[in-house]
Amino acid sequence: MKEVYLDYSATTPVKKEVFEEMAPYFTEHFGNPSSLYKIASESKEALNLARKRLADLINASPEEIFFTGSGTEADNWAVFGTLDAMKKKGNHMITSSIEHHAIMHTAQYLMKRGIDATFLSVDKEGIISPAELEKSINDKTVLVSLMMVNNEVGSIEPIKELALVAKKHGVLFHTDAVQALGNVPIDVKELGVDMMSLSSHKIYGPKGVGALYIRKGVRISNFVHGGAQENKKRAGTENLAGIVGFGKAAELANKNLTDHINRLTELRNYFIDRVKGSIKDVNINGSMDHRHPGNANITFNYIEGEAILLLLNEKGIYVSTGSACSSASLSPSHVLAAMGVPVEMIHGTIRFTMGDFTTKEDLDYTVEALKEIITKLREVSSVSEEKGW
Amino acid sequence: MKEVYLDYSATTPVKKEVFEEMAPYFTEHFGNPSSLYKIASESKEALNLARKRLADLINASPEEIFFTGSGTEADNWAVFGTLDAMKKKGNHMITSSIEHHAIMHTAQYLMKRGIDATFLSVDKEGIISPAELEKSINDKTVLVSLMMVNNEVGSIEPIKELALVAKKHGVLFHTDAVQALGNVPIDVKELGVDMMSLSSHKIYGPKGVGALYIRKGVRISNFVHGGAQENKKRAGTENLAGIVGFGKAAELANKNLTDHINRLTELRNYFIDRVKGSIKDVNINGSMDHRHPGNANITFNYIEGEAILLLLNEKGIYVSTGSACSSASLSPSHVLAAMGVPVEMIHGTIRFTMGDFTTKEDLDYTVEALKEIITKLREVSSVSEEKGW
Repeated sequence: MKEVYLDYSATTPVKKEVFEEMAPYFTEHFGNPSSLYKIASESKEALNLARKRLADLINASPEEIFFTGSGTEADNWAVFGTLDAMKKKGNHMITSSIEHHAIMHTAQYLMKRGIDATFLSVDKEGIISPAELEKSINDKTVLVSLMMVNNEVGSIEPIKELALVAKKHGVLFHTDAVQALGNVPIDVKELGVDMMSLSSHKIYGPKGVGALYIRKGVRISNFVHGGAQENKKRAGTENLAGIVGFGKAAELANKNLTDHINRLTELRNYFIDRVKGSIKDVNINGSMDHRHPGNANITFNYIEGEAILLLLNEKGIYVSTGSACSSASLSPSHVLAAMGVPVEMIHGTIRFTMGDFTTKEDLDYTVEALKEIITKLREVSSVSEEKGW
Repeated sequence: MKEVYLDYSATTPVKKEVFEEMAPYFTEHFGNPSSLYKIASESKEALNLARKRLADLINASPEEIFFTGSGTEADNWAVFGTLDAMKKKGNHMITSSIEHHAIMHTAQYLMKRGIDATFLSVDKEGIISPAELEKSINDKTVLVSLMMVNNEVGSIEPIKELALVAKKHGVLFHTDAVQALGNVPIDVKELGVDMMSLSSHKIYGPKGVGALYIRKGVRISNFVHGGAQENKKRAGTENLAGIVGFGKAAELANKNLTDHINRLTELRNYFIDRVKGSIKDVNINGSMDHRHPGNANITFNYIEGEAILLLLNEKGIYVSTGSACSSASLSPSHVLAAMGVPVEMIHGTIRFTMGDFTTKEDLDYTVEALKEIITKLREVSSVSEEKGW
């Protein structure tokens, strides 16, 4: 059976060139980078090259990149670390109602422990307003954390404007750029952000590696305590091969960025046009002007996304309802809810996300499958309705 | 040049069988285990097999194993998580003066934030006393965290007796078993521990993966917040290939445990005997009766360990002074200090740790190199002394 993977925002396969660069660091060049002998210095050099490559992708300095075990850990660190370091100044953080759970749940955990958090609303396209941010800042505010690209609807937030508001009020600004990395141009200096979370497995690198960019001069406590790794800021033996892979993936992303964006934008628009042209009563959620190039978040009215997902799966097509992280929970998307999408429409929503191995043929196959599946499900659904099920 | 790796306690190479089992999970079987489609369920199954294999190695149930990004993260989680969950009961923890920095620095961080910590002393062999533990418990004590095998001198602690004391007083017991795993038999039920930290890269698995065993029923807050991974207890997309590797390494360790221990013990004793027989004024630190089978921690009186390390490195022999984690800091080993080793002797100490690829020839080569190096350094040292350098 043909297999079509359309869940690149959940995770990406590791590219061949990335895997080949990582492989020797498992069995052969395995020295602990913290040790002092020859094979250890080779490992240290490999870490530094990866750090340089990732820094180059976001226009940071290598010494501003700190590797973590995931984008989620980077998010946790940014929040816990700054709130701890700045606790004499205040206990208020501002985030949004469409953040990834790595920020949302961290904020909620801290709210039970003396932290005050404001969750900014978004407009119907999922965009956060700098004016609303400004109104929410008070003299206890120490951190603003707003994502760069939303993981469900792909909206690209006005980070530069938002960071400027924070800066004006002397408040630290963190952005979760896990979905942005490799999919939109990123320049931390141009954006004016203080911290940025990154993840390897969304850019064709391995799972289990993330990073936090921390601008030189930012005060932040450590999150994972122990050995002196990562310039004494993040303890634990480095995921050597994983970091090497992340570095290679960053280098490739940097080299291919424009082509990648253009190619994905074309495929995504082609797919959306074909779906709209072949299936009635569909809505595209999120902004079309400020959007992740590979994201199509589509509501199929009157039916359940779960059912669509399962029938697509039977045809070898892999997509997601909402984000992968919450898909197992079956609770309706907090992102679509924040955008004002009615709950019955949220339930009929599928996220299609495309990547470097997606072809036009994959999308044609998916559109044909969708036509058949949606027709079938709507027949069942209208029968159910008539029968009062 | 011949290369002899004698720093297995710092890290191990990934075994070929482990690498081969991991490899397909990077490029081919890359589905996010949290998703709901076919390639995601395959990933989920791979995670579950790894969980089973690791559980089998320590006689736990698979649902008591929670994967983390490192042994250090597991240590941090155990401490932060239980102190947070038990804060209504008390704010006192007990640990020892020979713990890994992952515990020491976590305790020190928390001491500045309202936690009271007691650091138990050890005897001259590096052994912790159950009687001393009992005396340190008070009505505010909520956690005892004591390591199973020390990473520097290899002392095996009386965990069963220590855990029994904690249990008697209704206090949770955590053990850092990072150095113990795969090197001594572990049975969590027999030991009676509530939590145990584990790491993959010390047992011929990949770096960047650890685990925390949490006995069913233990109250512990989450440490990394976000998605619903690891049964909603540890957020972040799972390090799929890394976990598969950890699982395979655990399976191999389980299968080879007795042979591994016997072989290493023989090699280690052979090495110690040869060193003692060929070089004057050496001391073996730590217990010979209760010791990691591959650990030889040796003080060469009158000289600097750093110098020995560098000269051994020139001969392709890779060892460590103290633990790898603190080697870059050059501060004298807190473990040897706690055992009462005088500071000038601490500086002359080298840790040799052997593993599955160590041969008798490697050790003979090392002894010959040591004889030459120690003689040379002692000549320099006595000349320096005469000249008043």
